[in-house]
Amino acid sequence: MKDVPQMYVPTFDDVIAAHDRIRPHIHRTPVLTSSYFNELTGAELFFKCENFQKAGAFKVRGACNAVFGLTEDQSRLGVCTHSSGNHALSLSYAAGRRGIPCNVVMPRTAPQAKKDAVRGYGGVITECEPSTSSREAVFAQVQARTGGEFVHPYNDARVIAGQATCSRELLEQVEELDCVIAPIGGGGMISGTCLTMSALAPGVDVYAAEPLNADDAYRSFKAGRIIADDAPETVADGLKVPLKDLTWHFVSNHVADIFTATEEEIIDAMKLTWKRMKIVMEPSCAVPLATILKNKDVFRGRRVGVIITGGNVDLDTLPWMKG
Amino acid sequence: MKDVPQMYVPTFDDVIAAHDRIRPHIHRTPVLTSSYFNELTGAELFFKCENFQKAGAFKVRGACNAVFGLTEDQSRLGVCTHSSGNHALSLSYAAGRRGIPCNVVMPRTAPQAKKDAVRGYGGVITECEPSTSSREAVFAQVQARTGGEFVHPYNDARVIAGQATCSRELLEQVEELDCVIAPIGGGGMISGTCLTMSALAPGVDVYAAEPLNADDAYRSFKAGRIIADDAPETVADGLKVPLKDLTWHFVSNHVADIFTATEEEIIDAMKLTWKRMKIVMEPSCAVPLATILKNKDVFRGRRVGVIITGGNVDLDTLPWMKG
Repeated sequence: MKDVPQMYVPTFDDVIAAHDRIRPHIHRTPVLTSSYFNELTGAELFFKCENFQKAGAFKVRGACNAVFGLTEDQSRLGVCTHSSGNHALSLSYAAGRRGIPCNVVMPRTAPQAKKDAVRGYGGVITECEPSTSSREAVFAQVQARTGGEFVHPYNDARVIAGQATCSRELLEQVEELDCVIAPIGGGGMISGTCLTMSALAPGVDVYAAEPLNADDAYRSFKAGRIIADDAPETVADGLKVPLKDLTWHFVSNHVADIFTATEEEIIDAMKLTWKRMKIVMEPSCAVPLATILKNKDVFRGRRVGVIITGGNVDLDTLPWMKG
Repeated sequence: MKDVPQMYVPTFDDVIAAHDRIRPHIHRTPVLTSSYFNELTGAELFFKCENFQKAGAFKVRGACNAVFGLTEDQSRLGVCTHSSGNHALSLSYAAGRRGIPCNVVMPRTAPQAKKDAVRGYGGVITECEPSTSSREAVFAQVQARTGGEFVHPYNDARVIAGQATCSRELLEQVEELDCVIAPIGGGGMISGTCLTMSALAPGVDVYAAEPLNADDAYRSFKAGRIIADDAPETVADGLKVPLKDLTWHFVSNHVADIFTATEEEIIDAMKLTWKRMKIVMEPSCAVPLATILKNKDVFRGRRVGVIITGGNVDLDTLPWMKG
């Protein structure tokens, strides 16, 4: 037998503990509905608005669970991570509230709004190239230099247990859901959703939505093993990262299906949501709606939870204004 | 004595009747808070989000009250109005739900989003020049041709009673308000707010916020008589119209003060609200926040209701992108 470290898979008890731990630091975000989108899709959609969350994204749930779960001794050198943006600013927010240092590695191409927010919360940014390989290489240097506790953006039991509190709230807010759909990048939100649903509502289907331009989770799901792309290009800046062993565990065991959408479909769905629902949300959040509009037969007549994952977007460079 | 028509001033009984009449056709909109803006202003702000209202604006309250208050006979030839946009689309929405025709006169410079929405609800648009004189002249022709019931955008007891339901909800949603601030154009929302507060919470100060570039209400308030500008230029497209006798009655008798903001201050406050609160709202809605930021001494330490009046904005031409 090889001597490999045992992977700890979080349980629903971890979710309950996480929720108690993070409650003082997060919002219980509202669920919005839209008669326009219900008519357009033939489904009943319930939008869980994590764009209104503290730090502007669901990632603050997992980040707070990790940061406030550290012992005094563990927290002494602070925390560090690599992130496309929202985990970086969420970890900075959490660290700031606990009063410990936070070092983050972010792609130089990350939205300015996200970089500004990290600095606003007191995080220190080291930039890397926009690829997973560069992120991990630069991060190794930062971690060696700072000695901070590594809080992985998604492949971390504490983070997944934190994200799982989002769909726990959703189940309290909406009765008789038939399914839930969320965007998938590294799989943290989807894993948390699977964790909560398998415990509280095993009949609720969990769907994932992914940009066609970064469809490594889709291809992994169909192939039955992790396939990772190093540097995909998509407007959905939060969804470029690959699955890892822990998130793959949840995706391969619990996700009902993964759907993809083109860049144009994502941007159209994003703009339409801004226009009709009057909410500011990131391109990543539009992927679920874009895939619902493409796969109406799957969702028609069903009560569908849709996770709006974040709202940290550069208002000066909206994607429908490019070109 | 001259033979002038007696002006009917709506009472709070009219507000209660309006609320019962329009409830099936409107949303009870949420109240949002922002710790960021509370820290920035030193006040406790409660944002009443009428941008999430049906048809995207508070104006649907007054329009529905007028349309659904018509007798069968009165409704036969439909309704007509002139409007900078939101009243036009709200009246179209209400008329569409009742199944009667709706003719509206709108400035050719009105946001495309508002024109599209009017047509989407089945309203018929006749364009005019962007001045009050042109609006009223073109409207006289349209009304003569169609014979529809005129529902004035603000100088109408039915409309003011409808708008007054907004602050009635706000009082139910937020305890112990000290004051309320709303944008002022023709004065419909402010008059409704005064009507509700004088009946339910006479200790709550009502403030109005106006673009400096269209400060006719401010000058009227200071002069003690209606001063009307014909065609002011401001990014706050909903606030270009002058006070009329009925709204002047409420403004002159009940408003505590009127504050003004420059175009730059309005645009900055609008962008900051989108960025921090993740909501899509019109330039007009940013005027109250812009004036709070300028007059912090007035609001510091107080619980302040802020009416976010609407969210119908052209996403392709956001004001911070011009120039």
